[in-house]
Amino acid sequence: MPYVNLKITREGATAAKKAELIAGVTDLLVRVLNKSPATTFVVIDEVETEDWGVGGLPVLDYRARLAGPTTG
Amino acid sequence: MPYVNLKITREGATAAKKAELIAGVTDLLVRVLNKSPATTFVVIDEVETEDWGVGGLPVLDYRARLAGPTTG
Amino acid sequence: MPYVNLKITREGATAAKKAELIAGVTDLLVRVLNKSPATTFVVIDEVETEDWGVGGLPVLDYRARLAGPTTG
Amino acid sequence: MPYVNLKITREGATAAKKAELIAGVTDLLVRVLNKSPATTFVVIDEVETEDWGVGGLPVLDYRARLAGPTTG
Amino acid sequence: MPYVNLKITREGATAAKKAELIAGVTDLLVRVLNKSPATTFVVIDEVETEDWGVGGLPVLDYRARLAGPTTG
Amino acid sequence: MPYVNLKITREGATAAKKAELIAGVTDLLVRVLNKSPATTFVVIDEVETEDWGVGGLPVLDYRARLAGPTTG
Repeated sequence: MPYVNLKITREGATAAKKAELIAGVTDLLVRVLNKSPATTFVVIDEVETEDWGVGGLPVLDYRARLAGPTTG
Repeated sequence: MPYVNLKITREGATAAKKAELIAGVTDLLVRVLNKSPATTFVVIDEVETEDWGVGGLPVLDYRARLAGPTTG
Repeated sequence: MPYVNLKITREGATAAKKAELIAGVTDLLVRVLNKSPATTFVVIDEVETEDWGVGGLPVLDYRARLAGPTTG
Repeated sequence: MPYVNLKITREGATAAKKAELIAGVTDLLVRVLNKSPATTFVVIDEVETEDWGVGGLPVLDYRARLAGPTTG
Repeated sequence: MPYVNLKITREGATAAKKAELIAGVTDLLVRVLNKSPATTFVVIDEVETEDWGVGGLPVLDYRARLAGPTTG
Repeated sequence: MPYVNLKITREGATAAKKAELIAGVTDLLVRVLNKSPATTFVVIDEVETEDWGVGGLPVLDYRARLAGPTTG
């Protein structure tokens, strides 16, 4: 009876994409560990980009820094 | 000093119902483990139904499948 | 189909006490929100006291500070 | 940059099985949401069976109840 | 490669304050444990006050009780 | 009344290092958001390296791959 929590940045994942994630994670647990789908919970959290940090920066700032300056 | 996280699908739990959950979980920890209410935190997360999967499906689809087809 | 995570310091909670917590939280969700026990998961985490901080201190140091010095 | 937490009961999942879970979840996020593997974290928690409740019971008791009494 | 989850009540933390938290936690992990910023994730959850309990009460009720009655 | 969860790989963090993390995170929340230390919880989880995945691999394999083959 697994419990899976998926956290992703909120950037437009559709309900159809989320359904694919739910199906895919559940299938994986069935295949690898022989778990029952009926007792496999998957909870998806979409996190605002200003609430997700990496490299010491909010994620959009981090990506901008990686992309580098557009110097003239 | 317990920390409790309650995740439920977002389906209209009122503030009053949530207050009952907070009181009930706290009382339980006091009664069973002699914890202090002042250092017992309870955090409730309401999860959109499209973000909650069970049986490999988003929960509303799963419930519909359990309820069965209305065949003609 | 709720998911509940209870975090407590590891200080000797027995399996019987944990079973009481599991039963109590589940009953609460049935009573307050009419949830089904069969799809209510409860996961208990026991956390080492050196891994639990409050008041800026590991919890045992914090309790000792609250208890105060035994000055002579 | 997703973060995935997989909670399963501690019942002998090998390091090889865990590696399959890590690979499978990461592939899924790449395929469905075009995420980068290098910024996809997967954390697996194995939970003692006495710490996992379902149906208001510790999971081994719950399974035993579902299996039914072996009456004579 | 640490993962940090900060839960706070939703009471007006600005994006700038959140960026300070992200920078501060990341710096701390670099300084204390020599972790790499590029693989340090920080996720902030803002929790509605009606969803946060302490002392057996939703947090605003708890604070009001601590502040005491304004008796006449 | 924040709640902070720090997840790190289990690689020998001492109790003294953990105490530094607890103090540092708490100070940060006091400084940035004016939170009270007495109601700031910090929970540290040390995760076995075989339970932590990144880049689709258990973390030690991932680091080895990044370090590259020592070909002759």
